[in-house]
Amino acid sequence: MPVNYQATPAERLHPIAGLRIGTAMAGIRKAGRRDLVLFALDAGASVAGVFTNNRFCAAPVQICRRHLAAGGAIRALVVNTGNANAGTGAQGLAHAQRTCVAVAGLLGIADTAVLPFSTGVIMEPLPVERIEAGLPAAVADLAPAHWAQAAEGIMTTDTVPKSASRQLVIDGHTVTLTGIAKGAGMIRPNMATMLGFVATDAVLAPALLQPLVEQAAQASFNRITIDGDTSTNDSFVLVATQRAGHAPITSLDSPAGRLLADAVAGLARELAQAIVRDGEGATKFITVCVQGGRDAAECRQVAYAIAHSPLVKTAFFASDPNLGRILAAVGYAGIADLEQGLIDLYLDDVHVATRGGRHPAYQEADGQRVMKGSEITVRVDLHRGPAQTEVWTCDLSHDYVTINADYRS
Amino acid sequence: MPVNYQATPAERLHPIAGLRIGTAMAGIRKAGRRDLVLFALDAGASVAGVFTNNRFCAAPVQICRRHLAAGGAIRALVVNTGNANAGTGAQGLAHAQRTCVAVAGLLGIADTAVLPFSTGVIMEPLPVERIEAGLPAAVADLAPAHWAQAAEGIMTTDTVPKSASRQLVIDGHTVTLTGIAKGAGMIRPNMATMLGFVATDAVLAPALLQPLVEQAAQASFNRITIDGDTSTNDSFVLVATQRAGHAPITSLDSPAGRLLADAVAGLARELAQAIVRDGEGATKFITVCVQGGRDAAECRQVAYAIAHSPLVKTAFFASDPNLGRILAAVGYAGIADLEQGLIDLYLDDVHVATRGGRHPAYQEADGQRVMKGSEITVRVDLHRGPAQTEVWTCDLSHDYVTINADYRS
Repeated sequence: MPVNYQATPAERLHPIAGLRIGTAMAGIRKAGRRDLVLFALDAGASVAGVFTNNRFCAAPVQICRRHLAAGGAIRALVVNTGNANAGTGAQGLAHAQRTCVAVAGLLGIADTAVLPFSTGVIMEPLPVERIEAGLPAAVADLAPAHWAQAAEGIMTTDTVPKSASRQLVIDGHTVTLTGIAKGAGMIRPNMATMLGFVATDAVLAPALLQPLVEQAAQASFNRITIDGDTSTNDSFVLVATQRAGHAPITSLDSPAGRLLADAVAGLARELAQAIVRDGEGATKFITVCVQGGRDAAECRQVAYAIAHSPLVKTAFFASDPNLGRILAAVGYAGIADLEQGLIDLYLDDVHVATRGGRHPAYQEADGQRVMKGSEITVRVDLHRGPAQTEVWTCDLSHDYVTINADYRS
Repeated sequence: MPVNYQATPAERLHPIAGLRIGTAMAGIRKAGRRDLVLFALDAGASVAGVFTNNRFCAAPVQICRRHLAAGGAIRALVVNTGNANAGTGAQGLAHAQRTCVAVAGLLGIADTAVLPFSTGVIMEPLPVERIEAGLPAAVADLAPAHWAQAAEGIMTTDTVPKSASRQLVIDGHTVTLTGIAKGAGMIRPNMATMLGFVATDAVLAPALLQPLVEQAAQASFNRITIDGDTSTNDSFVLVATQRAGHAPITSLDSPAGRLLADAVAGLARELAQAIVRDGEGATKFITVCVQGGRDAAECRQVAYAIAHSPLVKTAFFASDPNLGRILAAVGYAGIADLEQGLIDLYLDDVHVATRGGRHPAYQEADGQRVMKGSEITVRVDLHRGPAQTEVWTCDLSHDYVTINADYRS
């Protein structure tokens, strides 16, 4: 069960003009579940994405990068769950390519106008013929209102579909953003997460789309971790259908540009946090805030050391204020000249440690009270500079082991 | 239960001339258990050590470094379990200092001749008065044959005491080495592990002791990981009592020097592997061997990415050959120009992946057969250089979560 998160009702997911969604049950890994999702974009849409830094990036990620780099119009996105098509060598690339060709044939577009995405088990051959067989049903199903089905169709070990939608007004015109994501395990995005799709009907210079998606990823998917495992398939894609009717945005630093960038980042953060709330076995949502660093990079280093420590994560699971484990993680984060005698540690409003040691006024009962909650903020002050950052993670529970020790989860 | 490891019988732990051991039950954390260990060294012994790189290093580690740097003779080592005296600020340093003063008073030596060590919970005040009260019993107990009691006296969540002993002949004289270690959790030594003590009666130039202990640490404790958490208290100490009677070793590159260095490293490796075999919740002992790297550093990086991945470790626990998770870990290890198309993966004798994809002849049944064993070797060939390395780890089981989610384990 996710931590304080429920699926967004379908009627609250606003359609995006110029974008239709169709899903199908292709039986890729299991029969009787929605496992194929197709996004069809009308001509004129702009698309940008960020992808995993994993050097074992999946075949579809390689094809996406190639098709986006070619610079032609993107007219369709196709997503399968049940198989990651990663660690599949040359055959995997051929399979991803065949998927694009099949979509292109059905929609009457170029195969380089298709971006393919896969999620699921690694190093097993993609059953591409099942995808080919399932695609006609997905095409027949295409409709603007199918965001909820799409959110369901990209799930793997997720227990709840993740989606978000918001509207803002630019230049007197309503601009809509809607997005979906999936996560659960192998989550420590390093560029983006597996998989996030956000679409908007905003009108903007196509060249702004790439910085927009990168900024949003930095503020959202690149700040979460469940198990520290960076997936082979992480992809976060932003589609702008350019239909909202307002004057085109030509700079992200303009008032309208900032409004849109904040909305995209906010929606991405909502989806990213939903992934953590539904992390494999998660029972708590932990915000790790590191301040007083010399630069953001060292704040991130410390924040991730805490967020990845199995000892810290099991202590959260147990609601045990065994907070020395947090200090130990700060200490091994890799900052060679860190002064332990300067460090402050807070748990929500409780001042736990000061000058590297237990705060004289700290009572275990106070730590215990905070640890029992399902939303906890850890704050570390390094007292060596002006930088700060925040990452989001969950605890490490028996269910994480159960889920991942299930034969081929 | 440890993986294929049993406690060494006390009668197989050879005493070291010039070194006596006494233990006591000081009630530091729990009553009725041996939790205080004292090593007394006759005049003439040489001592060197390596300590944690954790910037939150414990108070006793700071005192050890200071006393060793001062260059005077070391005449005693005192170890307590039940409290790490880490994250304890200025008071912690004062407590470690008081411990040294108490030992010095009882043995009639300088307090700078004492090295203190602590292991246990972090960020709780050390009950130094209990140590002071327990020390006279430890002094009264001093005897050369008490290695087995010492191994027991330094345990925390260890399920079995870890010790090893061996003899070699140098220059017609029998040289003896005996050592003990403890581990279990917060194990990813970065210099050495919490805690390893090896003593020998070998005769050698005192200046050789530091390179000897560093080489041995590199080949042993610095190659293991249980949970990736580098402890605040890691310490590995080598004592040479200089009593064996052979001609002094003046170079580690001489025949006798190499013999001794191999014996020290071999003993340290035996202790380090025992720590992994008794890792918290461990059910399997995994050797991760990475070859074909440009240098040893990148081989280590890849080996630790595999050894730390919760997904890889839970797959081992489940005996599930979900081996794409290993490829994913190789991919996110941080080698920016890694070519996935070159990678080979073997599981024991089974060739699982070639050129970055599943090997055509690989059968899941073969992977399954290997995964069911309790001793497994993962071998990755990067095919980009001549370097190689090996690290040892264990799986991630329900019991790891249970042990660490126990209130204040």
